[in-house]
Amino acid sequence: MSMKERLEKLYAYMEQGGVDAMLITLPKHIYYLTGFLNEPNKRFMGLVLPKDEQPFLIVPLLDLEKAQLASRVTAIYAHSDSSDPYALLREKLAGPIAKLAVEEEHLHVARYRDVMKATGATESVDAGEPLREMRMVKGPEEIAIMKKAILLIEEVLQASISYVKPGITETDIVAEMEYQMKKLGADAPAFSTIVLSGEKASQPHGVSGSRKIQEGELLLFDTGVVVDGYLSDISRTFGVGEVNEKLTEMYETVLQANMAAIAAVRPGVTFASIDQTARDILEQKGYGEYFLNRVGHGLGLEIHEYPSLHGNNHDLVREGMVFTIEPGIYIPQFAGVRIEDNVWVTTDGAEVLTSYPKELKIIGV
Amino acid sequence: MSMKERLEKLYAYMEQGGVDAMLITLPKHIYYLTGFLNEPNKRFMGLVLPKDEQPFLIVPLLDLEKAQLASRVTAIYAHSDSSDPYALLREKLAGPIAKLAVEEEHLHVARYRDVMKATGATESVDAGEPLREMRMVKGPEEIAIMKKAILLIEEVLQASISYVKPGITETDIVAEMEYQMKKLGADAPAFSTIVLSGEKASQPHGVSGSRKIQEGELLLFDTGVVVDGYLSDISRTFGVGEVNEKLTEMYETVLQANMAAIAAVRPGVTFASIDQTARDILEQKGYGEYFLNRVGHGLGLEIHEYPSLHGNNHDLVREGMVFTIEPGIYIPQFAGVRIEDNVWVTTDGAEVLTSYPKELKIIGV
Repeated sequence: MSMKERLEKLYAYMEQGGVDAMLITLPKHIYYLTGFLNEPNKRFMGLVLPKDEQPFLIVPLLDLEKAQLASRVTAIYAHSDSSDPYALLREKLAGPIAKLAVEEEHLHVARYRDVMKATGATESVDAGEPLREMRMVKGPEEIAIMKKAILLIEEVLQASISYVKPGITETDIVAEMEYQMKKLGADAPAFSTIVLSGEKASQPHGVSGSRKIQEGELLLFDTGVVVDGYLSDISRTFGVGEVNEKLTEMYETVLQANMAAIAAVRPGVTFASIDQTARDILEQKGYGEYFLNRVGHGLGLEIHEYPSLHGNNHDLVREGMVFTIEPGIYIPQFAGVRIEDNVWVTTDGAEVLTSYPKELKIIGV
Repeated sequence: MSMKERLEKLYAYMEQGGVDAMLITLPKHIYYLTGFLNEPNKRFMGLVLPKDEQPFLIVPLLDLEKAQLASRVTAIYAHSDSSDPYALLREKLAGPIAKLAVEEEHLHVARYRDVMKATGATESVDAGEPLREMRMVKGPEEIAIMKKAILLIEEVLQASISYVKPGITETDIVAEMEYQMKKLGADAPAFSTIVLSGEKASQPHGVSGSRKIQEGELLLFDTGVVVDGYLSDISRTFGVGEVNEKLTEMYETVLQANMAAIAAVRPGVTFASIDQTARDILEQKGYGEYFLNRVGHGLGLEIHEYPSLHGNNHDLVREGMVFTIEPGIYIPQFAGVRIEDNVWVTTDGAEVLTSYPKELKIIGV
């Protein structure tokens, strides 16, 4: 879908709901609709779609030049740090506004009040809904970018594991990986690169630190990069030298859950059923209590986007969706294993976009 | 101020305003009040202060272990991906809630509605206000951490400029710098490291790319790191080999504005007056139209926090505040200069926390 078509869909949504104007504020949505990717921090930035009028952008003055170079929406107005962006918004809106669509999962309460007051709107609806709906289904042009982000992180992973040896720290490895990311042309890490060793890997969101890698333990990587605004997100777990039977069994169980969950993906099944497929295997092997999180999450312009693959989500998988499959076993004070892939839903199954090998690999020796 | 005293201040604020409970959701505020630093992404995480009751934390289940290790608030409840965090919030609140304090500059509209519904609150006030108020004034224990973050980034800068030579790209330098950050023990870059060369530096928020550094041009660095949750933020501009008279004059003008603005800092003056001091010098030299942004911003747990040093802010500088002073000249399609320091307001002036030299330095030859 082209940016023009995306905007048309939003105008159609407005028409249908009797919406007078839509205000898009999430930076990635502005990118999705205009091609202009920018982080205004706390400054106000918005893409405005007024009913029956052309869309326009409001940007901080110091981002104006960048916006003019990148945005396909060419009506761009800037506010300086000492001027009121809401007054500018009001000024550029030609007609009266009663019903305004805003991004309810992005706009914070204080700014929402400012926007409602400035526009005079008496009612608001969620502009995020049609956007999340559109974004859930990825077209080939988006997959092409995501494949670049995935290929890049797999190259980083491959280059970095040769750097691992007993005695170096988690942080040393993270530094090496993020260096490789930049060298290979990533815009940024997709999130704080996670390298967790030994018992530290039992924290699914643990922070890499000065713990030294030891022989005989598992080493968990969870990493991704941003390329042209799109993200990759992959986890692999390795043995540092030979690992014992217990760790090997944990690994094989997670691998089995990963593969079964991927095999369960197809249009028409529920997200809950995919989560349950992985959970069943972990429970059968006695690890049920050590898998605390959902089996996966939507991936694309954000690291966590719709859909959410958890046990209570009975919505249906649709062709074109991209999400992670990432079962894990996390035993407190002992060890952690996660194997995470990115999949794209096809007409009758899933294309696994990640291609990094999944058999237990011994590194560092 | 200890974490206990900070919590006491919030309870006193609640008492004064007849607030029945306060919900803190900004991750850095939860860190400020409990010592637990965590990014829950889209999952719900909140610190709850119920009137006349002890505070408690609600965290995603996968962050529970980390919370238990770090938080000084020891009542911690977890929600899994398939359970409702708002029901948990309701369950743990003993009494009825009419007036709820929430972080209006953080909580988004959709979650605000969920929280109000779950608690049954009929009215809300801003919990951010007393927090921003407290955070604006930094104590010696906070300055000690910020000094670590500043020292670290100055070492990174020093180590990285020796790497600069004509022909390498902006991205090469960024990769080197972020590698040094990790190596020297930074938790993360404070923001996307900015290295801009030649005419690219005319975008104050430009993105480093594959442009090759050339002899005779200016090279602008804007960089910082996070250490224990606190940030540093410094900009320096160098000459790559000898630079011509025009570029030198731009540099000297910005330096003069930087030093004059710093000299203007003392308790009791307005933020606008500091901005004006820098602006006057740039205007006198004919660069007024090329300084588009404010002269500085508060710095601490966030990269942009209160106060904002812009021309319309007539609030008064107070002892203990920390902010940046960063005048610049940005001439589109030509060149950019920024010199940015971090200052701590003392009883009668300012202590400049950054110590990296500011005379025009020639590198890369």
